[in-house]
Amino acid sequence: MSASTRDQQSSQQSSDQQAREQRAREQAVTDMVAASFADAGSEQSLVRHLHAFARDVRLSQHEWDAAIAFLTRTGHITDDRRQEFILLSDVLGLSMLTVGINAPADDAATESTVFGPFFVDDAPRIELGGDIAGGAAGTPCFVSGTVRSTSGTALPGARIDVWEADADGRYDVQYEGRRTQGRGWLLAGEGGGYRFWSVTPTPYAIPDDTSRSPLPGTAP
Amino acid sequence: MSASTRDQQSSQQSSDQQAREQRAREQAVTDMVAASFADAGSEQSLVRHLHAFARDVRLSQHEWDAAIAFLTRTGHITDDRRQEFILLSDVLGLSMLTVGINAPADDAATESTVFGPFFVDDAPRIELGGDIAGGAAGTPCFVSGTVRSTSGTALPGARIDVWEADADGRYDVQYEGRRTQGRGWLLAGEGGGYRFWSVTPTPYAIPDDTSRSPLPGTAP
Repeated sequence: MSASTRDQQSSQQSSDQQAREQRAREQAVTDMVAASFADAGSEQSLVRHLHAFARDVRLSQHEWDAAIAFLTRTGHITDDRRQEFILLSDVLGLSMLTVGINAPADDAATESTVFGPFFVDDAPRIELGGDIAGGAAGTPCFVSGTVRSTSGTALPGARIDVWEADADGRYDVQYEGRRTQGRGWLLAGEGGGYRFWSVTPTPYAIPDDTSRSPLPGTAP
Repeated sequence: MSASTRDQQSSQQSSDQQAREQRAREQAVTDMVAASFADAGSEQSLVRHLHAFARDVRLSQHEWDAAIAFLTRTGHITDDRRQEFILLSDVLGLSMLTVGINAPADDAATESTVFGPFFVDDAPRIELGGDIAGGAAGTPCFVSGTVRSTSGTALPGARIDVWEADADGRYDVQYEGRRTQGRGWLLAGEGGGYRFWSVTPTPYAIPDDTSRSPLPGTAP
């Protein structure tokens, strides 16, 4: 074995040892913090997953600074009309996952989804076959189906609430002034059947001044 | 095999299948959201670890609501004088871990720590052997040591900044009015040696009106 090879091996060993030491120090921080939440399993889990993320991406001080600034902006823009933390949860898929966790899978059931932010409590009732568009811009669209229980029993009288964005990607409540468009509720008829007219739903944008872009870690 | 045993087995199979289906649905949400951040590895990692946490604790809708409300309060109490998101990061150990990740382990080095929130830029300079207490309440305390590089070379002239809480667990800046106590900086002398007087440091409390308690998931 040459001196040079020995040097390389020694250097490699030293580097391995440093990496082990580094991992051990980081794990010690995680264990100590988790132990401080000894009575609270949820916080312990949060700490462990949050730390795993930081180690995974080797979180830089700059990214940490950006994350703090991002959360601060998100907090300051949140008020009675805008809930940016919910929007952040939506963008990160946490809202949808939470719904999925709490409405367990059933092959016979329509998959549940998040309760959208544009629901309004006093939407108008429409009759079977009526039109919820109320003058909203868009291509007319006819919707029909049947409401059944997971065992297949038809459910006449089931309440169906519908609200949707128009062709410009906006809900009625996003316009200045009061209008009611693309929104309504109806009851399933005999045999659980329902049908109504509206306009073809479109994708809609979310405000991009805070939560959506940029997230910390992306280029500013 | 009795009919009853067959029923049990069938029921067990059905339950296993539902559990698999549930896991698959949850994983599909995570994969879809991660894919939406395809250009950003850090966000993908955040999504995966955040979702792993939610699945781990089977996050309830109530806990999710509490988390949103908690973050909203944390945002609203944050201003020019209080940074509650940093405090939250501290409490969750993320600040300390970030420091650890960015200042890799070196057996010969003093472990780095977080840059505390009570640093003040214009602290007074004191001479070697001087007193930084400035009248702070507490038991007198003498501190001495030597500043060396990681290779063991003494570092005369190294700057040492010191700030600490008094016997009541408060920093000078936490009192009404302006005072400078338990705070100062000095330069290491010949041979890297330093020494100064102060009061014995004490643990100090952090505000408990938002970030510290309760975290979402703990009893209110």
